[in-house]
Amino acid sequence: MTVMGFIDENKQQHLEELKEFLRIPSISTVPQYQPEVQHAAQWLADHLRTTGMQHIDVVPTPLHPLVYAESPRQDGRPTVLVYGHYDVQPAEPLELWSSPPFEPEVRDGNLYGRGTADDKGQLHTHLKALEALQTFYGRLPLNVKILIEGEEEVGSKSLWQFVRDNQSRLASDALVLSDTSMLAPGVPSLTCALRGLNYYEVEVTGPARDLHSGLYGGAVPNPLTILARALAQFHDKNFRVTVPGFYRDVARLSAAERKALRALPWDETDFRNNVGAPALSGEKGYSILEQIWCRPTFELNGLWGGYIQDGAKTVIPSKAYAKFSTRLVPNQDPDEIATMVEAHFRKLLPNTVSCRFTVLSTGKPWIASSTHPIVQAAATALEQGFGQKTVFIREGGSIPFVAEISALYKIPCVLMGFGLPDENAHAPDEHISLDNYFGGIRSAALFYERLSTLQGEPQ
Amino acid sequence: MTVMGFIDENKQQHLEELKEFLRIPSISTVPQYQPEVQHAAQWLADHLRTTGMQHIDVVPTPLHPLVYAESPRQDGRPTVLVYGHYDVQPAEPLELWSSPPFEPEVRDGNLYGRGTADDKGQLHTHLKALEALQTFYGRLPLNVKILIEGEEEVGSKSLWQFVRDNQSRLASDALVLSDTSMLAPGVPSLTCALRGLNYYEVEVTGPARDLHSGLYGGAVPNPLTILARALAQFHDKNFRVTVPGFYRDVARLSAAERKALRALPWDETDFRNNVGAPALSGEKGYSILEQIWCRPTFELNGLWGGYIQDGAKTVIPSKAYAKFSTRLVPNQDPDEIATMVEAHFRKLLPNTVSCRFTVLSTGKPWIASSTHPIVQAAATALEQGFGQKTVFIREGGSIPFVAEISALYKIPCVLMGFGLPDENAHAPDEHISLDNYFGGIRSAALFYERLSTLQGEPQ
Repeated sequence: MTVMGFIDENKQQHLEELKEFLRIPSISTVPQYQPEVQHAAQWLADHLRTTGMQHIDVVPTPLHPLVYAESPRQDGRPTVLVYGHYDVQPAEPLELWSSPPFEPEVRDGNLYGRGTADDKGQLHTHLKALEALQTFYGRLPLNVKILIEGEEEVGSKSLWQFVRDNQSRLASDALVLSDTSMLAPGVPSLTCALRGLNYYEVEVTGPARDLHSGLYGGAVPNPLTILARALAQFHDKNFRVTVPGFYRDVARLSAAERKALRALPWDETDFRNNVGAPALSGEKGYSILEQIWCRPTFELNGLWGGYIQDGAKTVIPSKAYAKFSTRLVPNQDPDEIATMVEAHFRKLLPNTVSCRFTVLSTGKPWIASSTHPIVQAAATALEQGFGQKTVFIREGGSIPFVAEISALYKIPCVLMGFGLPDENAHAPDEHISLDNYFGGIRSAALFYERLSTLQGEPQ
Repeated sequence: MTVMGFIDENKQQHLEELKEFLRIPSISTVPQYQPEVQHAAQWLADHLRTTGMQHIDVVPTPLHPLVYAESPRQDGRPTVLVYGHYDVQPAEPLELWSSPPFEPEVRDGNLYGRGTADDKGQLHTHLKALEALQTFYGRLPLNVKILIEGEEEVGSKSLWQFVRDNQSRLASDALVLSDTSMLAPGVPSLTCALRGLNYYEVEVTGPARDLHSGLYGGAVPNPLTILARALAQFHDKNFRVTVPGFYRDVARLSAAERKALRALPWDETDFRNNVGAPALSGEKGYSILEQIWCRPTFELNGLWGGYIQDGAKTVIPSKAYAKFSTRLVPNQDPDEIATMVEAHFRKLLPNTVSCRFTVLSTGKPWIASSTHPIVQAAATALEQGFGQKTVFIREGGSIPFVAEISALYKIPCVLMGFGLPDENAHAPDEHISLDNYFGGIRSAALFYERLSTLQGEPQ
């Protein structure tokens, strides 16, 4: 029997354990779920016991706990830092789920439920890979540090603090994580770039109180109209962001990079069908992959104000609200962009309203080389695990921790994603392909074995 | 003892009864309040027994019941149709009320609660005036028909049907109602024009489902952005509505009308303070009173879509929604305007989204002469009731029933309003001045007495 055989024998048990993890609604953005978030952290600590870890801590923070674990130190072996997050996005709108978001269910070769892809299901592949190595060999072939946070969906504040406080303790030869997607089903993919993310919220106030639109309408500033007018001016007719300076530091794509993107086995028709809009729209002059991977965006994420229930209410509201975000690419600086966006927004408002502008979070973009031996080891492991050639891709999403660790330790970051483009992360009917989940466990185990043969740095 | 003395003696009892009426949360726009709406109708029927009515019916309709009552027929006496509505607006946002909206409370000479001004408190003045006349004289001095609806805040559909079905039964010499405001405290006012109201709702759909803004952002149509861009184009820089044809039929103000408006004892500073916005804004070239009384508007009443709870969610929503309305003035036609508004909205949308456009209700504007003997009788009654000269004003709000009855029966409509500009109708802390409530009862009784001396038409 090989480790692979051992992993394949335990498929059903792995799946049942993952379902248990998924049943915990660890929604980090909504305060009332705090006990469930705590429960998920404790669940992880309990289930790390079989993975060969020596120290396992649930680390309290001002918001949601971190889970940190270390294997027994083996000198001369390389050290890998495994990252994941156990928190999930809210499940709303609930009525659009085919099965309840926190009652995981297998249909047509996919496991459905909030967190299946982002990130509980993907994180779980690493725990089961390590468990298999530990059980099969009686010890892990390398040094492992595991860091799992509960605030990925709310800005990772506690994670940053923990990294700052434990900088030498966390030192490793590589970071590995699975929180991204494969380019297409059956195509193992390593992600070599991520966009950064700034998230903002605004409150625009016109009248001091809600007014009757008959008695006042025509003479008073309507904050809904004023907010709509401001937000309407954030893109020009080519769908370029109008914030002055926004593109100043954006890295230009080389001809070779654009060619490599065009050569990828990526199906535009699948993408269009998956989006399901009457037509697509994006920044003029760029391909779809360039738009979603290599170009920065300004995107509205929420908008509300006035009467939003059934029926009619003839009100001019006092306040209007919006949540929006900017996705950032190399070499944009998140803090500079936040300043520019706020200045632009304020400039677009007339003097008839006041405004509260809040930057909820900022996060750097990241880009890395695909030629590092550790990245190449990962590519080979994925190829073996899935039986297909690995491709190097970018992703438009944001994992702020990657940019942070990359800058701090100057180590390679290995992003082996087991999601798929239609996985519905952050949306109803989120799911993970069972082929990818089980292939992920195999690939992670192969990667750790392969990594253990490379030379580690003294820690 | 005079009738006036009799009315003054019963002040406390009138107030306690009104409070009872106000405690019923008869919110017509929200389906779950249906039993409370029914309760309010029954309460009215019970309390009409003391007002000299012979027939009292609670009339079932497809939505909310009507209350209809008639006094015993006295030939040779004029007939008045008294109108009111017992339904109220939703009370949200609840946290901005100083006292609970359905627990009426007197503070500083005002009675606070949802419906105090719009319209339960004002309607109640007529019931108590009739009760006083009936009790004091043993019979009413004229023929009275009372029609009270429960759908004023949702488009009055059942009322129209009832009027069409009972056209000859409802025939009268005058319509009287109190659902408007006085120009200023202590200034008795008769309203001689009202704006019409069309109310619309739109649903704009881009992607077929909610998408992750990282994985898709940059290449897909965001319905929030597209909705904001469309709504931003409904006004030009002078805050004129851009809908083609919108102003085509608008009656121009004569120099005499503009002069009369300027001569009214109306305090712009009070208006500005009452609105409480950093500055006002309205259509260029018109005074504030012209803007809110004589000019049509396009107004956003609600806007929503995406993630609107605490924290952050990086979503591109599938759908975005808006509720908006147009206030109409003579001689705009509501149906024509609805067609124009829909066409304009659809034209502003790109082909990347689909749209569901719904006209929730339409309503005609109304304007009338102030020189009719019945209107003059009302002016005199108000002057006696409040001890101040009556002014003739317009109002920017909409009472669709007035336009309908005016067109159908060609009779004068007497709008004796007892609200005040800062009464917060449709907003938190709605209230009525107790001086106006008690003065209203006196004025209504004086009006009915005066009206009874005029010649009635044979019914």
